[in-house]
Amino acid sequence: MSKPLLPPVEYEAAGPEVRAVYDEIMTARGTDWINDFWKVLANDPVTLRRTWDSLRQVMAPGALDPLIKEMLYIAVSITNGCTYCINSHTAAARAKGLTDAQLAELTAVVGMANETNALVTAWQVPLDARFEGGGRG
Amino acid sequence: MSKPLLPPVEYEAAGPEVRAVYDEIMTARGTDWINDFWKVLANDPVTLRRTWDSLRQVMAPGALDPLIKEMLYIAVSITNGCTYCINSHTAAARAKGLTDAQLAELTAVVGMANETNALVTAWQVPLDARFEGGGRG
Amino acid sequence: MSKPLLPPVEYEAAGPEVRAVYDEIMTARGTDWINDFWKVLANDPVTLRRTWDSLRQVMAPGALDPLIKEMLYIAVSITNGCTYCINSHTAAARAKGLTDAQLAELTAVVGMANETNALVTAWQVPLDARFEGGGRG
Amino acid sequence: MSKPLLPPVEYEAAGPEVRAVYDEIMTARGTDWINDFWKVLANDPVTLRRTWDSLRQVMAPGALDPLIKEMLYIAVSITNGCTYCINSHTAAARAKGLTDAQLAELTAVVGMANETNALVTAWQVPLDARFEGGGRG
Amino acid sequence: MSKPLLPPVEYEAAGPEVRAVYDEIMTARGTDWINDFWKVLANDPVTLRRTWDSLRQVMAPGALDPLIKEMLYIAVSITNGCTYCINSHTAAARAKGLTDAQLAELTAVVGMANETNALVTAWQVPLDARFEGGGRG
Amino acid sequence: MSKPLLPPVEYEAAGPEVRAVYDEIMTARGTDWINDFWKVLANDPVTLRRTWDSLRQVMAPGALDPLIKEMLYIAVSITNGCTYCINSHTAAARAKGLTDAQLAELTAVVGMANETNALVTAWQVPLDARFEGGGRG
Repeated sequence: MSKPLLPPVEYEAAGPEVRAVYDEIMTARGTDWINDFWKVLANDPVTLRRTWDSLRQVMAPGALDPLIKEMLYIAVSITNGCTYCINSHTAAARAKGLTDAQLAELTAVVGMANETNALVTAWQVPLDARFEGGGRG
Repeated sequence: MSKPLLPPVEYEAAGPEVRAVYDEIMTARGTDWINDFWKVLANDPVTLRRTWDSLRQVMAPGALDPLIKEMLYIAVSITNGCTYCINSHTAAARAKGLTDAQLAELTAVVGMANETNALVTAWQVPLDARFEGGGRG
Repeated sequence: MSKPLLPPVEYEAAGPEVRAVYDEIMTARGTDWINDFWKVLANDPVTLRRTWDSLRQVMAPGALDPLIKEMLYIAVSITNGCTYCINSHTAAARAKGLTDAQLAELTAVVGMANETNALVTAWQVPLDARFEGGGRG
Repeated sequence: MSKPLLPPVEYEAAGPEVRAVYDEIMTARGTDWINDFWKVLANDPVTLRRTWDSLRQVMAPGALDPLIKEMLYIAVSITNGCTYCINSHTAAARAKGLTDAQLAELTAVVGMANETNALVTAWQVPLDARFEGGGRG
Repeated sequence: MSKPLLPPVEYEAAGPEVRAVYDEIMTARGTDWINDFWKVLANDPVTLRRTWDSLRQVMAPGALDPLIKEMLYIAVSITNGCTYCINSHTAAARAKGLTDAQLAELTAVVGMANETNALVTAWQVPLDARFEGGGRG
Repeated sequence: MSKPLLPPVEYEAAGPEVRAVYDEIMTARGTDWINDFWKVLANDPVTLRRTWDSLRQVMAPGALDPLIKEMLYIAVSITNGCTYCINSHTAAARAKGLTDAQLAELTAVVGMANETNALVTAWQVPLDARFEGGGRG
C-alpha cells in the first residue's frame, strides 16, 4: 500500500487545535482512537477543523436518520471508487445497525443506478416535461 | 435539447414484446403514460425487457424500503452527473413521500461525500486495519 | 490488498441456487473454477442470478462479436478506474484472441478519447446541428 | 445551449497554421465543412495541430479497424457523460457503417460494464491471482 | 434548460440568515447581485451558510494566490463535467486576471492529464518506489 | 500490487526509437532513470513517442509556469482517482518547489470543488446569463 503524501499526525505530536478536534471525534464516537483520515488531514489544521465541523453537521440526525446518511455516503463512495471511504463508511454503517441484507440491497441499487445512468446517457434521452424540476408542479 | 440517438417508440407503433413491457410499467405505477427512457430503450426490445425486469426486482421493497432506494439512486445519479436520472428519480421519490427537507439533507450528504472522497484520495490515506472488510471482524 | 465486504462463498458451502449459477459459469467457460467476483456476489444469491443471466445475454454473439464486446468492456473499465475489471476482462479478451498490438491500440484510443472528452467539456463546445441524434437524418 | 468559452474561429478569419489543419481535416474526411470542436480549439493553434495529428494517428487503421475504434470512443464518451462526443462519434461511426443493431448492443455492453464495475467496487472484490497482468502467464 | 429542483430564493423573500449570507457575498465581491447557485442553495439555509463560510475560507489568499485557486477549481469542474461550475469559475478567474492564453494552456494541461490518467490506468502501471508518498524521502 | 498488462521495457532490451525517447526524458529531467509509466508504455513505441512529445509541449513554460501546470495535473489526477498520477506529479511538483503549505491548500480547493460541483448538479442549478461563455461579454 502506498504511503500518504504527508505522515499521520499522532496525538502526542499534535498541537492544541488538532488535539481539540481529536478529542471531539473520540467523544462523539465513544472511542479511544482516531482513524488515519483525520491524522493525515491534521497536517492542515484549518482544513481538519472545518471538515470535522462540516461532517458533524451534515451527518447529524435530522430529516434523515444517520444510518440512511451513511448509506448515501457509501453509494457516493462506490460511484467514485474510493476504497478507503467505502470501507470506513461501511464500518460506520454497521456500527449503526446496517445488516448484511441491507448492504446487499444497497449495492444492487448502486449497480443498477450506474447501469441506467449509462443507458440514459448512451441513448441521449431528452428529459420528459413532467420530470422537470424533479417533478415539482 | 439534443435529440436521442433513435426516436422514441410510441405505444401504437410498438410490437407485442414492447407493448407488454409498457403495460407492466403503467400497471406497476398506476399511470397511463410511459416516460422517454423506456420509449427510447424500446428500440432494443431485449434490453428493454431485461432492464425493466431488473429494475423492478432491484427497487422492490425488501430489507430497504423503496424511498431509501430512490434516495440511493439519486445519490449515484448526482455523482455521475446524469440530469435525466436526477430529475426522474427525484420525481419518483417525491411520489413516494420525499420531503423538501429530506431532499436538502440528501444533497448535503452527497456534496460532503464528494468532498471527503476527494480529500482521502488527494492525501492518499492508507486504509486503517480496523476498517478492512468494512469493519467485519 | 483489502478484504471484500463479505467473504467469498465457496462451492462446498453454497446453497443450491448459488451452485446452479456456478455450474452454468463453469460450463459456459469450460473451466473448473469460479473467480472471486461471483463468489463474493454469491452472498446475495438473487443479484448473483440476475447479474449472471444479464451478462450472458449482453455478451453473447450478436450484431457485435464477443471480442469487440470485451474490448468495449475494457474501455469502460479503464475510464471508471476499475482495476479488477480491467484485469479480468483483459484476460477474457486474450482468451478470445486479443493480441498485444490490439491491446496497445485499444489503450491509445481510450487515452485519446479521455483527452478530447475533456477538451470538449473544457471549451464548452456546442453541438453542431449535423451531429444531433448522432447524425441521423 | 451555453456559449463556448471563446468563439469558433471561421476559416476566413483563421491564420495559416489553422487553415492548414482545417484543410487536412476536410481532405481526410472528404467534406467541405469543419465541426465546432476544431473551430473552438483553433483559438489555441498549437493544441489544434497537436490534437489533430494525434487523433489522426490514433484513429488510423491498424491492428483494429476504424469502426471498432469509433465504438471504443463512444463507450468512453458515454462513461464520461460527454454529450458532444457521443453525438459526434456516433455520427462518425454511422458514416463508417455502424448499424442500429450494433449501436444497441454497444449501449447494452456499456450499461452492463458500468453496473458490474460498480458491483466489483461496492463489494471490494480482491483480484484473482489468475487475472494478474490481465491474465498473462 | 431544465428547472432547478426547488426555485431560487430571491432577496426580498429570504429570511434573515439567508439575507445575511447574501449581504456577505455581495460585499466580498463588490457586486449587487447573487448568482443562482446561492439562490437555489438558500432553500437549505444551514447548508448555504456552511458552504459560503467554507468557500470563503478555502479560496482566500494564502500559500496559493486566488487566481491559481480558481484555475484548480476549473480543472476539477472540467474533469467532473460540471457546466455551471466551468462557466462560473472561468468568469471568476477572468475577473481576477486570467488571460485567454492562460485559459488555453489550462485546458491543454487538463486534457493531457485526463489522457495520461487513462493510459496509466489502462496499462495498470505499478507505482515506482521513488514516487511513494509523492516523492517525500 | 497488481502487475502491469505488459512488462516494463528496460533500456537494455529497448529498440532504438524507445531508447531515443528514454534518452530525451533523462536529459530533460537531468536524471539517470526512467519511471515505470514510460517503460510500460514502451510496449507501444508509437504511443510512447507521441505521448512524450505531447507532454513535453503541454508542460513547457508558457503563459503558465510549470509548477502551476503540475498543480493542475494533480487536481485532475485526484478527481480521477489515479494513484500513480497523484504520486508521480506530486513528486514532480515538489521537485519544482511545491511546499507542504501549498499542497495542503491545493487539496482543500480540490475537495471543495468536488463538493460544490456535486451541489450544483444535485440542485440542477441553471446557468446565470452573466456566466455564459465563462463571463465573456
